[in-house]
Amino acid sequence: MKVNGKHYRTIWLKEDDDKIISIIDQRHLPHQFIIEDLHSVNEVVCAIKDMHVRGAGLIGATAGYGMYLAAIEAAKKNSFNEYLHESACILKSSRPTAVNLEWAVNRQLAVIAKGNSINEKIKIAKETAITIANEDAAYCKQIGLYGVRIIEQITKKKKGEAVNILTHCNAGWLAFVDHGSATAPIYEALERGINIHVWVDETRPRNQGASLTAWELINHGVPHTVITDNAGGHLMQHRLVDIVITGADRVTRTGDAANKIGTYLKALAACDNNIPFYVALPSSTFDWNIRNGVKEINIEERSSDEVKYIEGLCENEIKKVLLTPLNSPAVNYGFDVTPARLITGLITERGVCNASEKDILTMFPENK
Amino acid sequence: MKVNGKHYRTIWLKEDDDKIISIIDQRHLPHQFIIEDLHSVNEVVCAIKDMHVRGAGLIGATAGYGMYLAAIEAAKKNSFNEYLHESACILKSSRPTAVNLEWAVNRQLAVIAKGNSINEKIKIAKETAITIANEDAAYCKQIGLYGVRIIEQITKKKKGEAVNILTHCNAGWLAFVDHGSATAPIYEALERGINIHVWVDETRPRNQGASLTAWELINHGVPHTVITDNAGGHLMQHRLVDIVITGADRVTRTGDAANKIGTYLKALAACDNNIPFYVALPSSTFDWNIRNGVKEINIEERSSDEVKYIEGLCENEIKKVLLTPLNSPAVNYGFDVTPARLITGLITERGVCNASEKDILTMFPENK
Repeated sequence: MKVNGKHYRTIWLKEDDDKIISIIDQRHLPHQFIIEDLHSVNEVVCAIKDMHVRGAGLIGATAGYGMYLAAIEAAKKNSFNEYLHESACILKSSRPTAVNLEWAVNRQLAVIAKGNSINEKIKIAKETAITIANEDAAYCKQIGLYGVRIIEQITKKKKGEAVNILTHCNAGWLAFVDHGSATAPIYEALERGINIHVWVDETRPRNQGASLTAWELINHGVPHTVITDNAGGHLMQHRLVDIVITGADRVTRTGDAANKIGTYLKALAACDNNIPFYVALPSSTFDWNIRNGVKEINIEERSSDEVKYIEGLCENEIKKVLLTPLNSPAVNYGFDVTPARLITGLITERGVCNASEKDILTMFPENK
Repeated sequence: MKVNGKHYRTIWLKEDDDKIISIIDQRHLPHQFIIEDLHSVNEVVCAIKDMHVRGAGLIGATAGYGMYLAAIEAAKKNSFNEYLHESACILKSSRPTAVNLEWAVNRQLAVIAKGNSINEKIKIAKETAITIANEDAAYCKQIGLYGVRIIEQITKKKKGEAVNILTHCNAGWLAFVDHGSATAPIYEALERGINIHVWVDETRPRNQGASLTAWELINHGVPHTVITDNAGGHLMQHRLVDIVITGADRVTRTGDAANKIGTYLKALAACDNNIPFYVALPSSTFDWNIRNGVKEINIEERSSDEVKYIEGLCENEIKKVLLTPLNSPAVNYGFDVTPARLITGLITERGVCNASEKDILTMFPENK
């Protein structure tokens, strides 16, 4: 998507040296747009671990490129295979809960093994890294094409007035390679000249809405307004929201969706006010092994400092300020689960379906 | 309530000079506990306008004391009455939407008029200011005595385990003269040795939960944990909340409750998980003229800077940091309305009643 009028992905091979991976260092957003070059597997691991990159799709793509650098480095070692597998292990452990990370590394290991020479192995690794990134972008594009139909239907009823879309956290292109999941229908709607406006939940504690989603939207020229996480219910009561679209971190085969903490509250408000609530996801987000999201999805508990402190820009520097009494305890659950009964539909790369086991498996019959 | 082991109210006559009003300057909480002396009507107006004091009950009490200082100052002027009424006007306009402010000023004007001499008028003004403050504290105490019965019933089922109470914003003693509304049952429960734990919603954008409620609780020794506003739904799904108690800014005769933005979302989550949701309020919070809260209560829109920037402690100084892209717009609605259907009961100084017109008017028949 666009930044300062120029198209970017979140990760790419450096134009004048295809042994270097370029990423947007997201830790500095929304205040600074910094492109970082990664020269080694170690630098890739560091970028994933320290959250220069984040979001399931982008972590997978970054790991894919990391394995390409691992193959280049392995060629200079005594044992190519030993070094490659060591690198694979280190990459996998850089964010242990991200399912796309392990998937991308294993995919690379399987195809690299098929190369007949070291040069061929490196070539395969490079092509596969590019393919993983391209597939991620293509899936998101498809989500946009299916999701925009829902927005088009709403726009007919609004007679030229803006369609108001509420989103939570960042399920934007910054979390993938391009387009995003929840944002893909939004970017597609803009492309088609549909009058849209996005309510951006700031998404405490890490504020990915205020810092990442708002940054994406302002750079791509999408009309939007940042709100506190508390505001959505009021907006829905007063018909100022036409549709809610969020991403997801894990969706059960029955349609329960784990997503950033607070999503469940917005789903309740949408339901109470008869506003459609959609979850956009590439199919890699389904966990086919579980049925009951609230009972079976383990919710990550993160550092309480993310609640007690917050970072922002002060006199041109990023500063961290304390919000609570120093000695007050805090807890920080990363996600909550929205039960399928509150979800109007799932927007996937294969189309839109109801959040029910029957309809999900009709669309993805290979997982029956 | 207690601060550093010593009992305080939020406002009092200075011990060694009863022509000076002392308040806690709440702008510096939770990081600094600063007592401010107010020597004149002008200083009182400034304290209300710039939110050194806030909360309906405390604003009313402060205005009451302000009228006492006005009477002292008026005695030195050519026309006592003219100066008194001018001061009354200025006080009333310091926070135009606060109903308690106008009520307290009018009450003072009515009783001061009955004094036969200027000295008697000043004496009446002083006594009335003290009475207004005492009544506020007494009403809150009553709310505590009725509310604690609900907590006592829950504690029976929990067999010694802590009763988990979730609250939103600050409806604590800092918003009144003492005890608070939502916090009164909590302080009473602590007094009675009941095992309690409070989940404190941080309450963006102004963070009155993280900065004021958490500060009250830690100073009075109440076990508590600060959470983001997004967390409550997850906690309720996992039975980590036994009861929700919030305050209110305005309650219709049918029981719809306007309170700090985000309250409605917690009420929805409580309802979805069969958790009792109570609103605690002195009867002065009822607006007997309106029936439909969502349609009839006008919601204040505040500065978008409260969403875009946040203040906190950084290197021993209070600093304000920018959270969003500089040019992203934001909106800031101060309150939302929780429909009566989501409210288990109202805790008032006369007892607990259902949030229905019939039951409210049975308890307050003078408003039929």
